[in-house]
Amino acid sequence: MEEELTKDIEGGEVHREEEDAAASMEKAFVETEVPSWRKQITIRSMVTSLLLSLVFNVIVCKLNLTTGVIPSLNVAAGLLGFAMVKTWTVLVEKCGLLKQPFTRQENTVIQTCIVASSGIAFSSGTASYLLAMTPKIAGAGSAAVNVKELSVGWMMGFLFVVSFVGLFSIVPLRKVMILKYKLSYPSGTATAYLINSFHTPKGAKLAKKQVWCLFKSFVGSFLFACFKWFFAASDGCGFDSFPTFGLQALNKRFNFDFSTTYIGVGMICPYMVNVSLLVGAILSWGVMWPLIQTKEGSWYKAGLKGSDIHGIQGYRVFIAISMMLGDGLFHVVYMVIVTVKNFIAQQSEQKNVNDSMEEEQQIGDYDENKRKEYFLKDQIPNAAAILGYVVLAALSIVLIPVIFHQLKWYHILVAYSVAPVLAFCNAYGCGLTDWSLASNYGKLAILIFSSWAGLEHGGIIAGLASCGVMMSIVSTASDLMQDFKTGYLTLSSPRSMFFGQVYGTALGCIMSPLVFWFFFKAYNVGDPSGSYPAPFATMYRAIATLGVEGFSSLPKHCLTLMIVFFVGAVVINVLIEILKKYDIKIYRFIPSPMCMAIPFYLGAYFAIDMCVGSLILFLWGRQNKKDAKDYGPAVASGLICGDSLWGIPGAILALSGVNSPMCMKFLSSSVNTKVDAFLQG
Amino acid sequence: MEEELTKDIEGGEVHREEEDAAASMEKAFVETEVPSWRKQITIRSMVTSLLLSLVFNVIVCKLNLTTGVIPSLNVAAGLLGFAMVKTWTVLVEKCGLLKQPFTRQENTVIQTCIVASSGIAFSSGTASYLLAMTPKIAGAGSAAVNVKELSVGWMMGFLFVVSFVGLFSIVPLRKVMILKYKLSYPSGTATAYLINSFHTPKGAKLAKKQVWCLFKSFVGSFLFACFKWFFAASDGCGFDSFPTFGLQALNKRFNFDFSTTYIGVGMICPYMVNVSLLVGAILSWGVMWPLIQTKEGSWYKAGLKGSDIHGIQGYRVFIAISMMLGDGLFHVVYMVIVTVKNFIAQQSEQKNVNDSMEEEQQIGDYDENKRKEYFLKDQIPNAAAILGYVVLAALSIVLIPVIFHQLKWYHILVAYSVAPVLAFCNAYGCGLTDWSLASNYGKLAILIFSSWAGLEHGGIIAGLASCGVMMSIVSTASDLMQDFKTGYLTLSSPRSMFFGQVYGTALGCIMSPLVFWFFFKAYNVGDPSGSYPAPFATMYRAIATLGVEGFSSLPKHCLTLMIVFFVGAVVINVLIEILKKYDIKIYRFIPSPMCMAIPFYLGAYFAIDMCVGSLILFLWGRQNKKDAKDYGPAVASGLICGDSLWGIPGAILALSGVNSPMCMKFLSSSVNTKVDAFLQG
Repeated sequence: MEEELTKDIEGGEVHREEEDAAASMEKAFVETEVPSWRKQITIRSMVTSLLLSLVFNVIVCKLNLTTGVIPSLNVAAGLLGFAMVKTWTVLVEKCGLLKQPFTRQENTVIQTCIVASSGIAFSSGTASYLLAMTPKIAGAGSAAVNVKELSVGWMMGFLFVVSFVGLFSIVPLRKVMILKYKLSYPSGTATAYLINSFHTPKGAKLAKKQVWCLFKSFVGSFLFACFKWFFAASDGCGFDSFPTFGLQALNKRFNFDFSTTYIGVGMICPYMVNVSLLVGAILSWGVMWPLIQTKEGSWYKAGLKGSDIHGIQGYRVFIAISMMLGDGLFHVVYMVIVTVKNFIAQQSEQKNVNDSMEEEQQIGDYDENKRKEYFLKDQIPNAAAILGYVVLAALSIVLIPVIFHQLKWYHILVAYSVAPVLAFCNAYGCGLTDWSLASNYGKLAILIFSSWAGLEHGGIIAGLASCGVMMSIVSTASDLMQDFKTGYLTLSSPRSMFFGQVYGTALGCIMSPLVFWFFFKAYNVGDPSGSYPAPFATMYRAIATLGVEGFSSLPKHCLTLMIVFFVGAVVINVLIEILKKYDIKIYRFIPSPMCMAIPFYLGAYFAIDMCVGSLILFLWGRQNKKDAKDYGPAVASGLICGDSLWGIPGAILALSGVNSPMCMKFLSSSVNTKVDAFLQG
Repeated sequence: MEEELTKDIEGGEVHREEEDAAASMEKAFVETEVPSWRKQITIRSMVTSLLLSLVFNVIVCKLNLTTGVIPSLNVAAGLLGFAMVKTWTVLVEKCGLLKQPFTRQENTVIQTCIVASSGIAFSSGTASYLLAMTPKIAGAGSAAVNVKELSVGWMMGFLFVVSFVGLFSIVPLRKVMILKYKLSYPSGTATAYLINSFHTPKGAKLAKKQVWCLFKSFVGSFLFACFKWFFAASDGCGFDSFPTFGLQALNKRFNFDFSTTYIGVGMICPYMVNVSLLVGAILSWGVMWPLIQTKEGSWYKAGLKGSDIHGIQGYRVFIAISMMLGDGLFHVVYMVIVTVKNFIAQQSEQKNVNDSMEEEQQIGDYDENKRKEYFLKDQIPNAAAILGYVVLAALSIVLIPVIFHQLKWYHILVAYSVAPVLAFCNAYGCGLTDWSLASNYGKLAILIFSSWAGLEHGGIIAGLASCGVMMSIVSTASDLMQDFKTGYLTLSSPRSMFFGQVYGTALGCIMSPLVFWFFFKAYNVGDPSGSYPAPFATMYRAIATLGVEGFSSLPKHCLTLMIVFFVGAVVINVLIEILKKYDIKIYRFIPSPMCMAIPFYLGAYFAIDMCVGSLILFLWGRQNKKDAKDYGPAVASGLICGDSLWGIPGAILALSGVNSPMCMKFLSSSVNTKVDAFLQG
């Protein structure tokens, strides 16, 4: 759920741009030669990909460790890639040294590479299933067999083994998905239109302005993050603990914490996501937790530490999980139904559709033929893909039990047998709805494999590791199919795309653990009240514990509440679908259960940031609709990039033991009087 | 100097608007009837004046008590007056009850009234010469004869006696100044064009948008001021002591204190004023004071309190004063020369000018004749004005010695004999340059009368009181002549104008002491490190002390430094004039000594706020020049009004003993560790 939350805005943009371009996009490019697939891969694009991969890995890692809400960074990736190579080519051209112009195919390869590598940053689970294995998240009571210390070495090895599998599993399917079923892949399509538009004269001008906007907000956000650093000498200091709504509210994690990252995220996410988060926060931290806390001593033992899963924290985690599972399960079932229905419908109507389309879309024909031509020009032999899959699967079966001795070879064999089917389902569903369910499959995998392995045999680690296997395959499949769609629409060669994906995946496998390690060493990652609570690590571990221990370990009435929220999530989703079906517009105002569940664990602060982002965008749109639409995503991307990039110097400072010089402290009036007396006396 | 700092921007605007309107303003109004003078004064305009006078009294009083830098509030007064009456008439019109349309003459009367009343708020000296009499500012060492406790009663009486004199002294001169000498009075002219433009259809539309802008920034600023209140439980808490550039810099009063008032003031003041303030701040608090502080124990006694005038504070106050006096004296002399020169030139060339103008300005003729007609229609007999002056002077001679027994009847007689001449000079100079020198005349009066009366006879009080007499007359003269110019250009009757001035002055005499009393009781006014340091109270008292004690009381080397800065101020001004004469543009980049001197006493914080205002306006102008020009002053006025108006609920809360609930405290990292240990143990 983490990553897919927001992809649908991209879908929204597609339709607008599609209309603009309806007159035939390819005719605008008729005089531009399409380079051969080898020429689509250049050294400059590989360097650019490397740099931007690092940037996006840092961003995704930071987001994962703070809230796990990750917006679609495609626009930022596209803009920055374009900006970097364009600057380079313009400079070289001025020196009269330019050998090869910057093409949209090259741009697509960069984009693909960045998406692949930042996709790994998400699916590598450094902030979820891997971190969940550590003794820190596990707490004191866990047996040695159920914890595993992290190290960069085995993390990288594990990622290399599991991350390429998804790639091979879908390569053979690309023609079916894109040419035969003509799936829309909204994000991929949007990215393609963005890239296409950059390379038309008018688009290039707008892109230049957007890049300038992004740059300004980037610098502003970076400087503000740096400014904030000076005031955060220790925990409870600085802007993070600014009691915007008073100290009482801060205790309940209701505050605006001046995070430009989440303001930017809020600007990218649809309004309803942000509102859902806020509704969830108010429901949980405003109503439910205070009510449950009055039962301390009766429902659960009094005097437990705040982070103890048997106390109030248990309610927070498990109710959130049940709501997410309810939502996830609904979507998996729903997607399977839709997929099957569409599949059957398409099989029987394929011919009719093709015929009618030929008659109707005379203009489209030119574009389509051209795209088909290039998409089919360079082939990747199916045999090679299948061979790759089998070899990697065999490698996994041998190597993964070495890394996780709790996981047996037959566990992995089963996982690898089921995975391609799920990968297909996910890629197909994503093509239809732009909604990837990778993390839901991952959560189900935890439950199944952990209870299969059992507590004594290290079921928790087994479950989490199998989640990694599953998520990597399923998530890569849908991500990369989006890329193929982009490539199809920009006349990029599938071979250069495949190369970009392999390169990007490799980069991701190397960078993701390194970047995570950097944060892990510099900060107290996983502390629920710290800056890097890594919420999904706690949750994934809790799911695994649930898998091995059953419901008996839960605090009182927790199971009842879980059932209520599980059912509630399903009911809300069913309601939305019914309203959608009968076209009753109210469905747009029903909050999403998935989004509501996130602040259950984290508190309202980031939801408030995100709502501020929404508010800014809303006011901007009222002032100047066109500007807000054209530059909003660029400004938001700049905000996210700038703030996240401060993470690097910030972490270096933390690692080298440099403390901020000041503490901005918030004291109640009475405590302040005492402190003043203490300081003077 | 306080008030006049910024009037020249108004002058800058005139030229632009004058060009727009060159085609003959009055032809646009040809079908609009000019109401009789009685109809120009309506109940609704009197109520509006009353309300807005209160608002502006609060604003001016607050500004006086904080830094003494007061921007031109004419635009705000014009906009708000228009907005209030227009809203009222539109509402009444909708009910079908409107008897009399809203005319520009009525608007002018409101404007005049507000200007008169907020002029009193400045010239009443509640934050300068009156406050300087209090034991609080005087300190422990002053004899009883040289201090006077404030009370609303005698303050009001004093103001009533002295404030109307200026009015009567210039009424006979209005025809000479405006019709004969055709002085430009930039502020008055700008206001007239503003009011005229409001009452044309296009202008009304823009005015509506400006009012909306003003309203938004007003509400924002008010809410932010309210928000800030919650974090300021005690001294050293809250946004005021935000160490934007670190704690070291805060100690030297270098910080951005989030004051929307001064951001707004900075947006209204010309860039060079703000830069001058900053240059002065850096020179004094960044360089000079730290250097002088290293001489503690040698140049001045060690261990003195920060506010002791014999210590470092003495250097701050007296160097600032000498620089201001140098600048002021230069301007007085310069103005006298210019005035005399112009006077002579005009006397001899009057006819030629008139002839040539008639030939050249054929279009102007229609406007001018029309204006002349209405300006001469309703007369105020000269005899009445002179009688008024004599009666008030006689009253003053009797009453003022009753209030201040230190001041003898002959002192006042001398003051009243010289005053009309100075009033004429000031009104004439102001007509030429828009620069009123009232406070400079006041400062000179302090020096002269305090040394005349002598220390044992209460020379300090005598000096300060005579400063009040002088300033009131001189300042009113130029303010009201500006108003007559406005009236002339809007075809308002001099009689209704005169009524407006009398009404406004009376309002000012009542409100100004009351508003001041409110602040005086609610806050620790006059504390150099508090929120309301009232810098000019300390300075005026220091000038008076200088007058009676001579230079012997100064700390070591202070006199030398004073002479250096006095000469420096004169030299800088001479340099500017020379460069101006030879049209070398660099003069625009030479800071003004008057502005540089203010932060000598106060520190950099408000200069930084004002520079932030400049920066905002500059960036806005780069984004959209027209918008920044049209809406900048409205936004700035809103910022000032909103923040200042929070002063009222803020003072009420302080008076009723309600403390803010929180303290935002800034501690160094090491102190923070101690405090954390204290709070936990």
